[in-house]
Amino acid sequence: MPFVALPGFRDAFPDALARRRRIFEVWRRVAARYGFEEYDGPPLEPLDLYTQKSGEEIIEQLYAFNDKGGRSVALRPEMTPTLARMVSARAAQLKKPIRWFSIPQLFRYERQQRGRQREHFQLNMDIIGEAGPSADAEVIAAALDIVRELGFGSGDVRVRVSDRTVLGAGLGGELGVRQEELGAVLAALDKFERAPEAAIEALEAALGSAERARAVQRFASSLVDPGPLLASGAAVSLNECVASLRAMGLGDFVDVDFRIVRGLAYYTGIVFELFDAKRALRAICGGGRYDDLLKQVGGVDLPCVGFGMGDVVLGELIADRDGAPSVEVAVDVFVVAVGAEDRPEALALAHALRERDVRVEYALKRQAVGKQLELAAARGAGHAVIIGPAEREAGEAVVRNLETKVETRVKLNELRRDYAFTR
Amino acid sequence: MPFVALPGFRDAFPDALARRRRIFEVWRRVAARYGFEEYDGPPLEPLDLYTQKSGEEIIEQLYAFNDKGGRSVALRPEMTPTLARMVSARAAQLKKPIRWFSIPQLFRYERQQRGRQREHFQLNMDIIGEAGPSADAEVIAAALDIVRELGFGSGDVRVRVSDRTVLGAGLGGELGVRQEELGAVLAALDKFERAPEAAIEALEAALGSAERARAVQRFASSLVDPGPLLASGAAVSLNECVASLRAMGLGDFVDVDFRIVRGLAYYTGIVFELFDAKRALRAICGGGRYDDLLKQVGGVDLPCVGFGMGDVVLGELIADRDGAPSVEVAVDVFVVAVGAEDRPEALALAHALRERDVRVEYALKRQAVGKQLELAAARGAGHAVIIGPAEREAGEAVVRNLETKVETRVKLNELRRDYAFTR
Repeated sequence: MPFVALPGFRDAFPDALARRRRIFEVWRRVAARYGFEEYDGPPLEPLDLYTQKSGEEIIEQLYAFNDKGGRSVALRPEMTPTLARMVSARAAQLKKPIRWFSIPQLFRYERQQRGRQREHFQLNMDIIGEAGPSADAEVIAAALDIVRELGFGSGDVRVRVSDRTVLGAGLGGELGVRQEELGAVLAALDKFERAPEAAIEALEAALGSAERARAVQRFASSLVDPGPLLASGAAVSLNECVASLRAMGLGDFVDVDFRIVRGLAYYTGIVFELFDAKRALRAICGGGRYDDLLKQVGGVDLPCVGFGMGDVVLGELIADRDGAPSVEVAVDVFVVAVGAEDRPEALALAHALRERDVRVEYALKRQAVGKQLELAAARGAGHAVIIGPAEREAGEAVVRNLETKVETRVKLNELRRDYAFTR
Repeated sequence: MPFVALPGFRDAFPDALARRRRIFEVWRRVAARYGFEEYDGPPLEPLDLYTQKSGEEIIEQLYAFNDKGGRSVALRPEMTPTLARMVSARAAQLKKPIRWFSIPQLFRYERQQRGRQREHFQLNMDIIGEAGPSADAEVIAAALDIVRELGFGSGDVRVRVSDRTVLGAGLGGELGVRQEELGAVLAALDKFERAPEAAIEALEAALGSAERARAVQRFASSLVDPGPLLASGAAVSLNECVASLRAMGLGDFVDVDFRIVRGLAYYTGIVFELFDAKRALRAICGGGRYDDLLKQVGGVDLPCVGFGMGDVVLGELIADRDGAPSVEVAVDVFVVAVGAEDRPEALALAHALRERDVRVEYALKRQAVGKQLELAAARGAGHAVIIGPAEREAGEAVVRNLETKVETRVKLNELRRDYAFTR
């Protein structure tokens, strides 16, 4: 019985790992441009860190267990509680605003759905210590620049921006939704696009009357046109955020859309989601402002805004565009020793080339030159460097371009120093 | 009660994360030079994957639990079983020899010892499908090139190379250690340097006689001089491995030392460990040949050699040499808007500079120019780019070198295109 990975967990063979690393590189490059510093925390945390914020019901979705010391622990399902814990621990020393990002692997035990992973990697970018809408615009711009850096335009990817305080003001007016009802109503509105019937049921439960629920439902339907709410006095921050995105030249990507609510209860203001323009995939990225969380988790009162962007949907988006990925080549130069007595010189040269950061391989067992060249071709090496007795005598090697088959004799000194292997 | 990380788990604040990433970059750079491809596997695996190889007693050191689906699972304590599982699954398609590396985070529940982590990151480099000693030399050379790339010489770091088959031949001769006793005897020898009394007890238990144990003990003491064993016929592979390392110019780092045995039972030939020359720290790296493991775990019979190198001891070695690390700077340019009406132009310029991969920050709230320049200095930015009404009028900005305080007027077009911010 051969071993296999657990259901929902991915083996990353080199081809898949290379695709993942290209995404990570873009994440890191764009985060650096925005002045963000990388941090990381433990993948295993005290269970309380998650239940305090999200309630006991989250345990159902966690990989939670008791460790050998009797502690209740969980594999991290999200990064924000760890971020809140870490920032709170050093809040006094850290210069605000704090711009931090991380690329954690996250774990959720979800009933297995088709294509759903139980783990994924997620870029988290957060600005902590700035309450104004410039910070919201900054993280939205970074999310957009990531998809732009991956080659997607405003015809491929859209950001839908909303604001829970604007929704709250709209619901609180003539609809009379009270502050203590608001959380449940917003949670119901969040369901409208995906599961309208469940949303209506949830509204009735939240508002205690079918009539009030119908009124809110009409309000929800009216959100197709963002104009009225956007013109309301509550939308000052949201308008400023959108204006900043326009000033950065990113206005083409932005749709104000109050149907975006975000499921998590801890959001307190602007919220946003990135989608593929065709809406064929799940959200590429989601985030928003959560000004109360740090106080709850760490006892430090600092406003926060940030987002999470997973590797799975982004990978699907890239694969949909690019089709089958090209094969990775791991070798530039393959060093060939003609006979056993040429081997020490071949090893010395291989090592000298590696010192120049050339990617070098050679046959680990004694083989005929033809066999060695076959392996060189199988590896996709651009050049073979062949050393035999005559070459050693002359202090040279034969450089063979494996594509054009052109051979050149080059001094060993030059190979060691700076010879350019041009493809 | 503020939350803290679990005992033995590290929070990586940006300064620590930057140090970790520098190690990872060197690992990846050297692995690439050697033609290795990166892979990754799940941090959570079926428990059986570990117990089948190492026996039930390993459970004591594992983070093992039952998941919600009733599966016995464990956080990975090492990468080799996952590697064996993955290679076995694709053994037919993969061109041999396979050169793979990975940088997994590994987990062990050890009774808390001072400075001992319960998690660490470990570079794993393995060559699969080549039985000859050139493969052993290749992975040892890569391990040495990593410490060389980090700036350490043969006066700082040593590799101690040994061979369990040579030890086995030595023990099997006039000492009469039988094949079925060999595993327990080697495990006892492995303890000699650290815990000689426990080693002697283990020898007596393995050999069933104090007299035989004393004979093996004398043999162990004689290993201070590797000469006799190295001259024996069993040492052909080991001598060839060392000769290859010399040919690569790495001979200065190598000590043949038969006191190195390696604790894990699955090693079958050459074994090695890297140490700091002063022997003040634990091993930097350990590895060797394990030709039977793939067959046991995956049913595919392929010879393997490889090593693991953790981030903790390597980090200590670097810190011992370098002292307090320098502060990381995350920003190149700080864009300053003089008034509110200059802000859109400042945002446009900030975004244009980011498109050039310049690391840019600006004040997220409206502040006086002096306050903005203070934040620029606090971030360590090299330059401020200041835009006011006069500059906008002229299509220019003031570039202020924050070290020399020299100011230059530069066209916005030039800033957007290719202006070089030289420190």
